[in-house]
Amino acid sequence: MTSTLAIGNYNPTDRAALVDAFDAHVIAGPDEIAALDQGLREGITAVAYAGHHAFGGDQMDLLPQLKVVANYGVGYDAIDVSAANARGIKVTNTPNVLNDDVADLAIAMWLVQGREMRAAEERVRSGAWAKEGPAPLNRKLSGGTAGIMGMGRIGRDIADRLAAFKMDIHYHARSEKETPGWMYHADPVALAKAVDFMFVALVGGPETENYVSKEVIAALGTRGVVINISRGSVIDEEALLDALESGAIAGAGLDVFVGEPKVNPRFLTLENVALQPHQGSGTVQTRAAMAQLQRDNVAAQLAGTDLLTPVN
Amino acid sequence: MTSTLAIGNYNPTDRAALVDAFDAHVIAGPDEIAALDQGLREGITAVAYAGHHAFGGDQMDLLPQLKVVANYGVGYDAIDVSAANARGIKVTNTPNVLNDDVADLAIAMWLVQGREMRAAEERVRSGAWAKEGPAPLNRKLSGGTAGIMGMGRIGRDIADRLAAFKMDIHYHARSEKETPGWMYHADPVALAKAVDFMFVALVGGPETENYVSKEVIAALGTRGVVINISRGSVIDEEALLDALESGAIAGAGLDVFVGEPKVNPRFLTLENVALQPHQGSGTVQTRAAMAQLQRDNVAAQLAGTDLLTPVN
Repeated sequence: MTSTLAIGNYNPTDRAALVDAFDAHVIAGPDEIAALDQGLREGITAVAYAGHHAFGGDQMDLLPQLKVVANYGVGYDAIDVSAANARGIKVTNTPNVLNDDVADLAIAMWLVQGREMRAAEERVRSGAWAKEGPAPLNRKLSGGTAGIMGMGRIGRDIADRLAAFKMDIHYHARSEKETPGWMYHADPVALAKAVDFMFVALVGGPETENYVSKEVIAALGTRGVVINISRGSVIDEEALLDALESGAIAGAGLDVFVGEPKVNPRFLTLENVALQPHQGSGTVQTRAAMAQLQRDNVAAQLAGTDLLTPVN
Repeated sequence: MTSTLAIGNYNPTDRAALVDAFDAHVIAGPDEIAALDQGLREGITAVAYAGHHAFGGDQMDLLPQLKVVANYGVGYDAIDVSAANARGIKVTNTPNVLNDDVADLAIAMWLVQGREMRAAEERVRSGAWAKEGPAPLNRKLSGGTAGIMGMGRIGRDIADRLAAFKMDIHYHARSEKETPGWMYHADPVALAKAVDFMFVALVGGPETENYVSKEVIAALGTRGVVINISRGSVIDEEALLDALESGAIAGAGLDVFVGEPKVNPRFLTLENVALQPHQGSGTVQTRAAMAQLQRDNVAAQLAGTDLLTPVN
């Protein structure tokens, strides 16, 4: 009887690796746990978790021997860590291996939105360039002001890239960090006032819900652009949509949305936004590294050695 | 009688500035010179030039007092500098003020092509993300190998940005430069063999025509991507199209084309290319700075002071 339950929509390679390594039993989502054979449930000590469905105390109680939930992804807001703590269950995630990809996509959305590249590409492909002339001028990006909201590891990787674009860098975090002279703002509204481009790299979960509030968005001003590669929940999405539609801010680049993969249809007709389908870490190389780190955490639990990347 | 002839399709602001500053006579292209009043032609000492129509010895001979051709743009391959030299005419351009914008667009096309952002955005906007699931995984970019073909000021600005993406940087130029340990290749084929991503930042003109040859393109290999922000003429475009269509290379990001604004229709159906309408320097801020530098060169000529940015 296996001791590992894999929960999520794994690709064939990762699924096969979980089965090969741990003889894992695989189910699509946490709501399928209750239907599992009782003997199977009571033997499970490790869960390999993927996806954004909530995994809470009720599900954990169906797995009485559970010791670790190894999450696939750096963001583990789907997992109720308080419930895990109360049950002596450790949670692990897959940090760092995805930082580069996520930072790359943040920079990419900033450039695509600011240089109006989607409309410009359509101008080439439609023949309008030859028929109607050059694309409208857009906006210089390098040398401007950028703010990082949440200066964790991904925020830092974004800031390091922005520095090479000669940006004046500001940031907000719970505490001031050691930086190459970047300006710390204790107040998120003050950060938004100080910059044109705000990159949101917060941790998800209840504590940061709507942290990028209506007031923060308003403070960005008419030249302001929001780039979000963290979680849809960290922005007041209705306030963002209002500001994008009214011109109260200039634009946005969004890889994450409230209720994704469904997207508020008000976004879909906007031309001042770059929209991506939560593909920040979506490269072959990085997804393989994330899956490996997830399996390494499961293996550590089963072998009784230290977890590699615990979060609690 | 004015001493300044402005040639090109200027926007209203720049056109007005040329008229205000110099009482310039404005025509759309060099083929209109011959039809000008003889007295006007013989009084012209400065030409403010914009556009890609050839401006050669025959046109210069119609302006017997011509002392300077002040080009709008860093690339002055439309102007026959040998012919200018033979007549004692100085040529100026607008370097440096556009480096940031052009480097930004080079990085942007690299990211858009590699992370398949155009198809990914269509997946969001069409609703396919919710209906069909996540976008296909694509390719990790940071931490790879990049080659700069032509290490002038723009090439350097591209390389500095790529360094922040943790790229291993190689380059080819006529001579080795002082760099932070980047690898010099005297042979362009050797550069292409050494890297996955090749950024072309050559000077245009007859000397670099098809410099990125069939052999260079083949040496990039099946993971290779070409990014070009210089001139369409520097790449053997037929060889590039063959390689893109056959999969001999992985993709391209192109802001410039042979015969632009007409684009070879073979490009338009490719999904492995990012296409932009020669908008490298196309921001409000940079185009204004280019126009100012062009006028400053004209003003220096008229005042008898040193030209700011002569090329000959």
